Amino acid sequence: MITLEPIGTIHTPYTNNAPYQPVTNDVGEFYIDLLPEFQEGLKELLRFKYIYLLFYIDQLTEKPKMRFTPPWLKDKELGLFASRSPLRPNPIGLSIVRLINVIDNRIHVSGLDVFDGTPLLDIKPYIKELDDKADANYGWLEDIDNREHFMLHVKGIPHDY
Amino acid sequence: MITLEPIGTIHTPYTNNAPYQPVTNDVGEFYIDLLPEFQEGLKELLRFKYIYLLFYIDQLTEKPKMRFTPPWLKDKELGLFASRSPLRPNPIGLSIVRLINVIDNRIHVSGLDVFDGTPLLDIKPYIKELDDKADANYGWLEDIDNREHFMLHVKGIPHDY
Repeated sequence: MITLEPIGTIHTPYTNNAPYQPVTNDVGEFYIDLLPEFQEGLKELLRFKYIYLLFYIDQLTEKPKMRFTPPWLKDKELGLFASRSPLRPNPIGLSIVRLINVIDNRIHVSGLDVFDGTPLLDIKPYIKELDDKADANYGWLEDIDNREHFMLHVKGIPHDY
Repeated sequence: MITLEPIGTIHTPYTNNAPYQPVTNDVGEFYIDLLPEFQEGLKELLRFKYIYLLFYIDQLTEKPKMRFTPPWLKDKELGLFASRSPLRPNPIGLSIVRLINVIDNRIHVSGLDVFDGTPLLDIKPYIKELDDKADANYGWLEDIDNREHFMLHVKGIPHDY
């Protein structure tokens, strides 16, 4: 058994509906309040363009299922670990966000699809060459007919078609 | 307080020395044994070229410090969250590895610098366009004189100079 404690709280405009697509990147809408005892650990973070946020997905009510069929690919059965579903044995979320500003213990970031009040577990810098795998692929997402449109949803890019 | 339970174990050739640079990618050297109850969750995972591994860094003896000076940048003080140091308030490790094969509940991957027996917390697919940020930067690593050489170490690429 492993025990962790939140190091801060993620704030978003989302209070009850699961946001599949963050539609705004306005400064002030998405920010993290780090516990003051960890503020010293932010030195030089703002040098990075992107950061990883690791958080605890604390508002789940269902239990994880090892297999599921995504709504946009109705004849396909997927394993849970081949997906980014929040319903996981260890509900640790991972998002890459654009770092906008750091003011004292408050970190302003671009949009991410978590509920307001989500407990933060860790922040790591996203490092060029180490983390951007130019030869990555789409996995089973290659089977989706309108993958380009689907990726707009995955990436949270607003669009009206 | 958040409690988690390992879903498997990461196996590497490293038993006691902190490996800064995995020097081999031979199949069979690095693999994960997922607990059998989660094996069903691996369906379609092998379609992906890269995966994220989230693991619990369980062999730490020191306490995290919010500021430190890296050995390769002696006049610089960094915040912990601007680094990938394993000594963190919540010692969750994150590695991107190449997926080599999945045989039953065993997952063969490329090299990563963790100790043999490290508890696995989660596997997520690394998805093209979502996770590869072509415009990412090096952050404070830009201040390192011989950054190109340093990145060989960071990426675990063997070299003899």
